[in-house]
Amino acid sequence: MEINGVTIDDTYAEAFPTWVCRVIITAVTKDWALKAATEATGFATSAIGCPCEAGIESILSGSETPDGRPGVSILICASKKKLKEQVVERLAECVLTAPTTAVFNGITDAEEKIPVKLHFFGDGYEYQKEVGGRKCWVIPIMNGEYVGEEEFGIVKGVAGGNFFIMGENQMAALVAAEAAVDAIDEVKGVITSFPGGIVASGSKVGSLKYKFMPASTNEKYCPTLREKVADTKIPAGVKAVYEIVIDGVDEKSVAAAMGAGVRAAVKVPGVKFISAGNFGGSLGPFKIELFKVI
Amino acid sequence: MEINGVTIDDTYAEAFPTWVCRVIITAVTKDWALKAATEATGFATSAIGCPCEAGIESILSGSETPDGRPGVSILICASKKKLKEQVVERLAECVLTAPTTAVFNGITDAEEKIPVKLHFFGDGYEYQKEVGGRKCWVIPIMNGEYVGEEEFGIVKGVAGGNFFIMGENQMAALVAAEAAVDAIDEVKGVITSFPGGIVASGSKVGSLKYKFMPASTNEKYCPTLREKVADTKIPAGVKAVYEIVIDGVDEKSVAAAMGAGVRAAVKVPGVKFISAGNFGGSLGPFKIELFKVI
Amino acid sequence: MEINGVTIDDTYAEAFPTWVCRVIITAVTKDWALKAATEATGFATSAIGCPCEAGIESILSGSETPDGRPGVSILICASKKKLKEQVVERLAECVLTAPTTAVFNGITDAEEKIPVKLHFFGDGYEYQKEVGGRKCWVIPIMNGEYVGEEEFGIVKGVAGGNFFIMGENQMAALVAAEAAVDAIDEVKGVITSFPGGIVASGSKVGSLKYKFMPASTNEKYCPTLREKVADTKIPAGVKAVYEIVIDGVDEKSVAAAMGAGVRAAVKVPGVKFISAGNFGGSLGPFKIELFKVI
Amino acid sequence: MEINGVTIDDTYAEAFPTWVCRVIITAVTKDWALKAATEATGFATSAIGCPCEAGIESILSGSETPDGRPGVSILICASKKKLKEQVVERLAECVLTAPTTAVFNGITDAEEKIPVKLHFFGDGYEYQKEVGGRKCWVIPIMNGEYVGEEEFGIVKGVAGGNFFIMGENQMAALVAAEAAVDAIDEVKGVITSFPGGIVASGSKVGSLKYKFMPASTNEKYCPTLREKVADTKIPAGVKAVYEIVIDGVDEKSVAAAMGAGVRAAVKVPGVKFISAGNFGGSLGPFKIELFKVI
Repeated sequence: MEINGVTIDDTYAEAFPTWVCRVIITAVTKDWALKAATEATGFATSAIGCPCEAGIESILSGSETPDGRPGVSILICASKKKLKEQVVERLAECVLTAPTTAVFNGITDAEEKIPVKLHFFGDGYEYQKEVGGRKCWVIPIMNGEYVGEEEFGIVKGVAGGNFFIMGENQMAALVAAEAAVDAIDEVKGVITSFPGGIVASGSKVGSLKYKFMPASTNEKYCPTLREKVADTKIPAGVKAVYEIVIDGVDEKSVAAAMGAGVRAAVKVPGVKFISAGNFGGSLGPFKIELFKVI
Repeated sequence: MEINGVTIDDTYAEAFPTWVCRVIITAVTKDWALKAATEATGFATSAIGCPCEAGIESILSGSETPDGRPGVSILICASKKKLKEQVVERLAECVLTAPTTAVFNGITDAEEKIPVKLHFFGDGYEYQKEVGGRKCWVIPIMNGEYVGEEEFGIVKGVAGGNFFIMGENQMAALVAAEAAVDAIDEVKGVITSFPGGIVASGSKVGSLKYKFMPASTNEKYCPTLREKVADTKIPAGVKAVYEIVIDGVDEKSVAAAMGAGVRAAVKVPGVKFISAGNFGGSLGPFKIELFKVI
Repeated sequence: MEINGVTIDDTYAEAFPTWVCRVIITAVTKDWALKAATEATGFATSAIGCPCEAGIESILSGSETPDGRPGVSILICASKKKLKEQVVERLAECVLTAPTTAVFNGITDAEEKIPVKLHFFGDGYEYQKEVGGRKCWVIPIMNGEYVGEEEFGIVKGVAGGNFFIMGENQMAALVAAEAAVDAIDEVKGVITSFPGGIVASGSKVGSLKYKFMPASTNEKYCPTLREKVADTKIPAGVKAVYEIVIDGVDEKSVAAAMGAGVRAAVKVPGVKFISAGNFGGSLGPFKIELFKVI
Repeated sequence: MEINGVTIDDTYAEAFPTWVCRVIITAVTKDWALKAATEATGFATSAIGCPCEAGIESILSGSETPDGRPGVSILICASKKKLKEQVVERLAECVLTAPTTAVFNGITDAEEKIPVKLHFFGDGYEYQKEVGGRKCWVIPIMNGEYVGEEEFGIVKGVAGGNFFIMGENQMAALVAAEAAVDAIDEVKGVITSFPGGIVASGSKVGSLKYKFMPASTNEKYCPTLREKVADTKIPAGVKAVYEIVIDGVDEKSVAAAMGAGVRAAVKVPGVKFISAGNFGGSLGPFKIELFKVI
């Protein structure tokens, strides 16, 4: 298929299940909610080496938050066991410590919930209070009082939705990736956990040469190795590839984000080819076809 | 002592040793260097619950970086053992994955060095190359080639430099804290690892009520508990306290940052009192006196 | 009336008619659309000394723009005669010159239209083309081709919607003003044209002492003059006032923005009093009551 | 000449004299100083259609400003007559109105000075006060008191320093232009007044076809007209050109900025050719040679 002169590969993204928690962080201004959310979702690009995957889902106006203040919703994704630990630690260290913040459960209708008991930090001075219909704990802290719900819904979501943007040079692919992330930012239910939402160094599972490596460069998608690798996937004329990796609350959201991202990327001059990553079904059960999402 | 009508407490910040690694991250633009640095220093506010403490030290122009591109220097602070692991993981997951980045050793004259062997990711396709006089590895990746040094100097630095900004209300203290962080941003050799550089919920070691808590709210510095806590440290008229916590490469830098921060904070209307945190010498060997740093 | 412990004055904002043009600016990324929009709406705070009033109305996703790229909508407000000149100059100098931009008419159903003939810049090399159902001119320029519609709808809107945020100190009022602007940013059809959306120095028409001044400080609303001015409007305990001034496409939008802004401001600790500015009907025909908008 | 595989044209930028005023804007935080400075330097890209050229020169720490607060220095450039009017209007409308600002003369040793008498806004309530050794006026306003010097040094500077970045496609040229602006940001004494510092649509004086146009597209530098224009300046393989235009306090600063910008641009993959704009000496007396500045 071709859109805007860009070839779309007839392939699919292979994605896998993950547990997802959505946290609503509010603060006195949007700026402070964003600062807390950025710290709380840092060092969370890939489950390969980070303790979880996390990112900012959307900016919320006061009419969309329980306490009527500006907010940000974040998604934190991990195995069920790690998820609880990571939500606790990230809220305790990066949100409770941030100026003027409050936190609320972002998936109120989830069947499963995890406890996030920060109120022990109050050392007995904490107390309970209803805020916006939510049962919260109030913890006296230096800047006044911290307010937070302590039960967070979690759902079985989808990790590893993805597509590749291939450009005639690095900057065409990079700006196209940025445009794709701009588009995905408007889709609810998803995050792109990598720096700026973009992966520069997509990997394969394991390594051919170094047996101790859990993952290594995906040489078939390395433009500088095009002449050296027999089964290269790099089309002629392509000099750079960026991967956009998407995690979300369900397959539908991830597919919508893939679609929005691809449609945005093909509008950028210098983009030649769009593909997606899969591993023949060994990685996960979700097959999200490029032709269907566009 | 009084400056600008603000009382400066006759006390000191008690700080303790930490190991510090400085990494220079460069990218095609300052914006991309910042995005990588922000991800790499996220979830790194406090050693209590984060795997390390980290932050952005300064923005570097092309004339200050080995490859002549715009850059950002970050500091990562932890125990020696954790430091190596954290530098490896954060560069591998948050910088190698970021568009167009390269990394360089930021402390070339350090006596001790840690190895950061990312080149195994190249799966045999990597090679060595000199960049700006530095011995680097080049790893073929999707967006082209990643360049990085693999030996990073580490030094014994100082963690936990701090001061408290107390305001007649929360917003006066908050904006003063922001002004303090603006000033500290100009001081070389230091970081403020908390969200926006500011701590809203300073803690004490342990907990009086919940024995399983390694740290809990410092009730003596909680304005809403002023009437309830016998030995409160909150002066009359103070309704909010923010703590600025500073880590740095040496005591001198941390002291300079404290001085710059206090001088900036007292200029903000509504600030009433400046103090600092110490634990009677039980925490660490460095005593940085407020009266001396100003 | 009192909300959240803050007194709401029983008064109204007096607003006046203005002509309004909405321009949709798109670019390769949201970031570049914002840069062009920021330049195009600069030096446009108040009709008293600026050639027009202008500001960013909202961020648009690709699904909301004619060419499917990320965009920003701006409003430019002035008298009908000045409006045409200002739209032409600002698009010619600040958007046509900006990387990768295109411009589209943002009020397609307006009864009145102004011509904005930038295509003469093409010196004969320009040509016509349909983009997203819009009749556009394409102008060859250095970075490729600029695309733009050349007829823009204008409507009779409302300028000078406003409210005052009074705080127990400057920082409480300032952060409350910021929170108010965050809330107003989410309301369609309006802009806040001052720096950061906030006015620090509201004025009265003319001057008592300097006859050559078209406007001067509104001494009744100056906290430092509270003891010196007989008919001061500053309640006891108020030390700072910020005015939020709102222009919009119609009275309903301006009223909605006032409501959103006030509701956000009263949530910020240290805010004491909310009022609004009017001149006994001498300025304009619109009376927007605070009690009704909340 | 060739650097990094990019051909540098053996030519020069033709620049012309302008009067320059530097204003130091301080505020409670760097963020607020930047917001005021951004508004004050908006709608000021080119003297062709804007009332002046203006931009942000540098960020200043508290140790570099008269009142010890964070600051921003801006340059405003115009003919001597227009300069006075523009400095007055832009400070009155965009800085005096901005939260917490103060302004100071940024060229204290200039031989010529312009008066900027904002104190009449005080309507008799204003008074004089020394701040950081500067004779200032204090004006009571809504948010408290505004402080400002009222004599500003002006110098004969240089406008129109420039160079062209030509890329194999639009995105390569665009990101290179961004990297060039990052580098120029670090050079003192200069500004780049266009959106994001970059010109997408460089012009020639007058028009061949439309006699009423003072300027029109420079068809010799339009890549899409390469086959249609006899004396095109577009080398084979170039698909986009961005111009960086630099104004500064003297020729030396402008030359330094051109050098820093070119050195940064040639590091970006996909850049093919660097040139500069001149008009055979008809525009101005300064000839700044590319070979000398690098």
